[in-house]
Amino acid sequence: MVVGVFDSGVGGLTVLKELARLVPQANYLYFGDTARLPYGSKSVETVAKYTISSARFLQQRGIDLLVVACNTATALAFGQIKAALPVPVIGVIEPGAGRAASASRSKSVAVIATEATVASHAYQRALAERGIRSREIACPLLVPLVEEGWLDHAVTEQVAKIYLAQVFNGAAPGGAATSSPSAPADVLLLGCTHYPLLRPLLERIAPPRVTIVDSAESTAQAVADYLGNPASSAVAASASAASTSVANPHFQSPDDPIAQSPNPTIHFFATDSVEKFRRLGERFIGHPIHNVEHVDIEI
Amino acid sequence: MVVGVFDSGVGGLTVLKELARLVPQANYLYFGDTARLPYGSKSVETVAKYTISSARFLQQRGIDLLVVACNTATALAFGQIKAALPVPVIGVIEPGAGRAASASRSKSVAVIATEATVASHAYQRALAERGIRSREIACPLLVPLVEEGWLDHAVTEQVAKIYLAQVFNGAAPGGAATSSPSAPADVLLLGCTHYPLLRPLLERIAPPRVTIVDSAESTAQAVADYLGNPASSAVAASASAASTSVANPHFQSPDDPIAQSPNPTIHFFATDSVEKFRRLGERFIGHPIHNVEHVDIEI
Repeated sequence: MVVGVFDSGVGGLTVLKELARLVPQANYLYFGDTARLPYGSKSVETVAKYTISSARFLQQRGIDLLVVACNTATALAFGQIKAALPVPVIGVIEPGAGRAASASRSKSVAVIATEATVASHAYQRALAERGIRSREIACPLLVPLVEEGWLDHAVTEQVAKIYLAQVFNGAAPGGAATSSPSAPADVLLLGCTHYPLLRPLLERIAPPRVTIVDSAESTAQAVADYLGNPASSAVAASASAASTSVANPHFQSPDDPIAQSPNPTIHFFATDSVEKFRRLGERFIGHPIHNVEHVDIEI
Repeated sequence: MVVGVFDSGVGGLTVLKELARLVPQANYLYFGDTARLPYGSKSVETVAKYTISSARFLQQRGIDLLVVACNTATALAFGQIKAALPVPVIGVIEPGAGRAASASRSKSVAVIATEATVASHAYQRALAERGIRSREIACPLLVPLVEEGWLDHAVTEQVAKIYLAQVFNGAAPGGAATSSPSAPADVLLLGCTHYPLLRPLLERIAPPRVTIVDSAESTAQAVADYLGNPASSAVAASASAASTSVANPHFQSPDDPIAQSPNPTIHFFATDSVEKFRRLGERFIGHPIHNVEHVDIEI
């Protein structure tokens, strides 16, 4: 089983990190389209074109499953990517929305994401289908703050407080709106794969009743579920428990040496500087990165 | 005379704004490579490739002169752009460094710019050639803060104060260093075309002895000088004064109707969303933008 993981940059490494923990039997190809990032401020047409060309690169390398570990690409181009690829595709929006819907008692969710993700209203639609009201706001400064490494900086706290005040205390939430007074949101959905790095800060400043749902973690769980991996179904599951139920025909047999490996093989591709990918990426995945290959997918 | 003005996004509009004031007789084609921005965090190879493909697009539209109104592209790829184009090319580094060198009495200049511009040390070299010591620091948060529109926001002030403290009070300046104690920098060089929008804020928080030099303004002046426009040589010069000295053979004759027009014709091209270019760009150029054409230069 080779799982392709795609993102515009290093943010999708937060999904890969969770995947490697939940599904260590798979091998991974990670593609960061770093020459053309960020997608979060670009148009539907541009994001669709870039994502499909990147996905096709991974397909040519023989992936069995593609994880679109990029909220913007999923929000804007998921249908087009699915149509363009012959392998199953899992995006981040549905898993994130599903987890947020389960976690909310007030049936009201606050979503923070990039400009393009918010403009697409993909989370709002996915939550409305589950009977959940939502308010979404774009937080364009959070990605640069994370990339600057200011994860617990006074400036980041000030910026995050401004955004959280907007999303929690602004106008009445839309989505599956009713005319009755809205209950306050009790879930904060992190709709960008950069944001998990700010989770400790966000947990400190979010209103006390609020549960934080991370679309990266939710997506890794959805992939594990799809692959029928027992490690996905219990908090206490470990890699060694992944020895029975193999629902997906592509999934490695437990007799396969790869399936027993606790450390999945990961190969990285980046369209811009390999050195920069390595330097930034290590912060996201939490361990040193060595095998990054530069690719030029325009040629 | 058709002048091509190139930038990765809307920042170069600060150069175009000054150009339209100093050289209103010219016609302008502005190209913003918004689908692939920002260049400031990308590698030399990627920036060179993107810039040359954009410059060639403008060349095919018949420009007589190219202004690379992007610090990163000038810093990383100026030689390659000049080699690739048959028309004269003016970048932002030399004019900015020249003006800063003239303005500094202490022969020490502080430079703020993007990550890629700083990594190239293009300003440090250009200043050292003029006998000026410099310290450069990358300010990756300033572009997103400008694009968020937080031009006079408490967060922007806090971020700018952190960066200015680093560039003015950090380690001893490098560049054309001597072993004698360094005099403090008395010039702040804005090495990114987004930063002129922060000039009022920077003037308020910079040390009182410091003169701010704007590479956008300096570049427009250099273009005016190159074209032999009298409006370039006196502060009180007006468009109507541009009726005699025409040093450059490409320059419009004063009898040409265009030469007498106080409002130059400007056509805009953007590789990403036209609507977003218009919305953001108006803040940079200071008036409504209508004629933006979407182009896809990868095809």
